[in-house]
Amino acid sequence: MPSNIQPEIFIQMVLLNWEMQNERLNSLLDKLTDEQLASATAQNRNTGTYLLGHLVAINDAIMPLLGFDDKLYPGLYETFVNKPDNSGIEFPPVSELKIYWKNVTERLRQHFANMPVEEWFTRHMSVSEQDFAKEPHRNKLNIIINRTNHQSYHMGQLAYLANK
Amino acid sequence: MPSNIQPEIFIQMVLLNWEMQNERLNSLLDKLTDEQLASATAQNRNTGTYLLGHLVAINDAIMPLLGFDDKLYPGLYETFVNKPDNSGIEFPPVSELKIYWKNVTERLRQHFANMPVEEWFTRHMSVSEQDFAKEPHRNKLNIIINRTNHQSYHMGQLAYLANK
Repeated sequence: MPSNIQPEIFIQMVLLNWEMQNERLNSLLDKLTDEQLASATAQNRNTGTYLLGHLVAINDAIMPLLGFDDKLYPGLYETFVNKPDNSGIEFPPVSELKIYWKNVTERLRQHFANMPVEEWFTRHMSVSEQDFAKEPHRNKLNIIINRTNHQSYHMGQLAYLANK
Repeated sequence: MPSNIQPEIFIQMVLLNWEMQNERLNSLLDKLTDEQLASATAQNRNTGTYLLGHLVAINDAIMPLLGFDDKLYPGLYETFVNKPDNSGIEFPPVSELKIYWKNVTERLRQHFANMPVEEWFTRHMSVSEQDFAKEPHRNKLNIIINRTNHQSYHMGQLAYLANK
């Protein structure tokens, strides 16, 4: 196979797009005050705080899904994924959520960097061996493509908090 | 190389995520009235009509960038990319924009289906041969990963038009 068609390159494509989304969220977080982040992204829509917690919880869940480790913050899933904003469950302070975000991002980066190439193309933990045999695209790297899109989706909404 | 690490599988991963975003936008368009689509996605933010035109224009620009063809609707780029919403330039009717959206999506689908595997891993038209030699991830398939994220970003905003 020619050198430009190598799995290493494909992994790099996916991870660079993932990193780009993380950088965009980091720049936005640097710009917003905690008060801005706590406000609604649009009338009657999720707050920035909820969406930040949601992204931390969803990205943290990549850890067990890719077989790396347990979640760093398992308690967040109930508050920020299973439950909607304004569920009545108290949120961690914004300053804490920002630390969780940095920790999850950094921990994933380390795991990604240590992942052997061929491991990226094995099944993730929510697809069975039988299904994977029929649908070999449902691998670990595909999770990252999917979660990058998930983050972009909410990033479009979080962007509405800036320059109001 | 094992059968689960083949360039055909990378391409499928990227295109399935691309198709998923298109399906999401199609479902949303089916649900919204033209009046809903013409309203602002949030206070003082882009209208749905502008964002639809923007996505058509950006996706149409994939055509020359991947060396397929000229744009189907070159005039849209000025209105929906170079200029902001409310620039004073008259928009095509929503019914027309929806047809453009379907045509661009379908035309790209045909080109993608006919693209030889190795061609996906060659440079796109806005990277020079010299730069591509140093950064071989800047290939045609990478454009699709990037544009899928672009569409997800605006999809997060368009979703605010539903169930207001």
